[in-house]
Amino acid sequence: MSEEVQRAPERAKRLPRAVRERQILDAAVQVFSRYGYHSASMDEISEVAGVSKPMIYTYLGSKEDLFAHCIRREATRLLEAVQAGVQPDVPPDMQLWHGLRSFYRFVADYRESWTVLHRQALVVGGSFAEEITAMRGRAIELVAALVVSAGSRKGLASQVEKSGEGLAAALVGAAESLADWWLDHSEVTDGVLASWLMNLVWLGFNDLVEGEVWKPRQ
Amino acid sequence: MSEEVQRAPERAKRLPRAVRERQILDAAVQVFSRYGYHSASMDEISEVAGVSKPMIYTYLGSKEDLFAHCIRREATRLLEAVQAGVQPDVPPDMQLWHGLRSFYRFVADYRESWTVLHRQALVVGGSFAEEITAMRGRAIELVAALVVSAGSRKGLASQVEKSGEGLAAALVGAAESLADWWLDHSEVTDGVLASWLMNLVWLGFNDLVEGEVWKPRQ
Repeated sequence: MSEEVQRAPERAKRLPRAVRERQILDAAVQVFSRYGYHSASMDEISEVAGVSKPMIYTYLGSKEDLFAHCIRREATRLLEAVQAGVQPDVPPDMQLWHGLRSFYRFVADYRESWTVLHRQALVVGGSFAEEITAMRGRAIELVAALVVSAGSRKGLASQVEKSGEGLAAALVGAAESLADWWLDHSEVTDGVLASWLMNLVWLGFNDLVEGEVWKPRQ
Repeated sequence: MSEEVQRAPERAKRLPRAVRERQILDAAVQVFSRYGYHSASMDEISEVAGVSKPMIYTYLGSKEDLFAHCIRREATRLLEAVQAGVQPDVPPDMQLWHGLRSFYRFVADYRESWTVLHRQALVVGGSFAEEITAMRGRAIELVAALVVSAGSRKGLASQVEKSGEGLAAALVGAAESLADWWLDHSEVTDGVLASWLMNLVWLGFNDLVEGEVWKPRQ
């Protein structure tokens, strides 16, 4: 064996496995986000990560496994970021505001994570799409609890109980769709984006819990 | 040639091609919606349609071609249904109301079409997902025009010009997400669903065009 060949594994050993795995996942998110799942190559991920392909396979498995790891890590990151932003002791509108701020700040800071989660995972389909659907479900539950608690404060628990989950689903869809639109309009800041949505949905919802109802006219 | 063999093509000829194609597409939408693109089989589509597999291939091509035909037909149907419902001479809130009513009525009447368009096409990805994205883009443009025209009536053209497209993207996302939620909660009627969303977004937007602005507090 030449010295050259011996040196490589020695150098590789210097970094703990957790650090290598992070490097691989960071590179994978970058490559998946740019090319999509199907066109992304393990060669490119290996090159961007600075980690050999055999080591990637050993640590994190096949391309499919790697994509699953990415989805899971980024989904957890996103939910943690939003939950960290929520302040349970403030009024509901401020809770929602902080949640939206955290969400759009996450999309701004981790644009590639959002792209992989929102655009790529659904396209690849199968169990990935199911994981995303489960994550959306958790987000809808969180928002529904907020809507119901806001309704209860105004003595409208029963009305909001019925529509709360539907309104929460609408709100989560609005937030995602606006984030998606933002990928092509990044000149708007994350704060402005959050305030647009807050104005749209909250002033609406605020009127609802005051008992105002819009009715079709002739 | 036996009479048996001669009779089959004769019988097949009795139906004009357009009718056969409609039968095939109806069956395909049903099968794709139930099993998803990957699990759907041409055998089952042939059986449901009552049209032989060779005839399906001759008329509409491969499974991939067939799926593309389905997407295109259902997307056109959906856009036409929504546009038919819009009444350009009524105030903006009534225009939006009629649009939402038409949209949810379409999803109620063509639940399988919506499932194929919204759940299956994105999962299959590629050019199908692109077609859906283009359709969403047209829907967002329509709603943005409505938002801007409503803002202009209130003398807020410049403010709404900037946020209008983003708000429209949010609104389209809210409508889709609520329709998606509805697939699992079909006890709610389409009229109730449309009025939930109208209350949420319009009373919100109505306040916006009156110049009200929600601001975060300390």
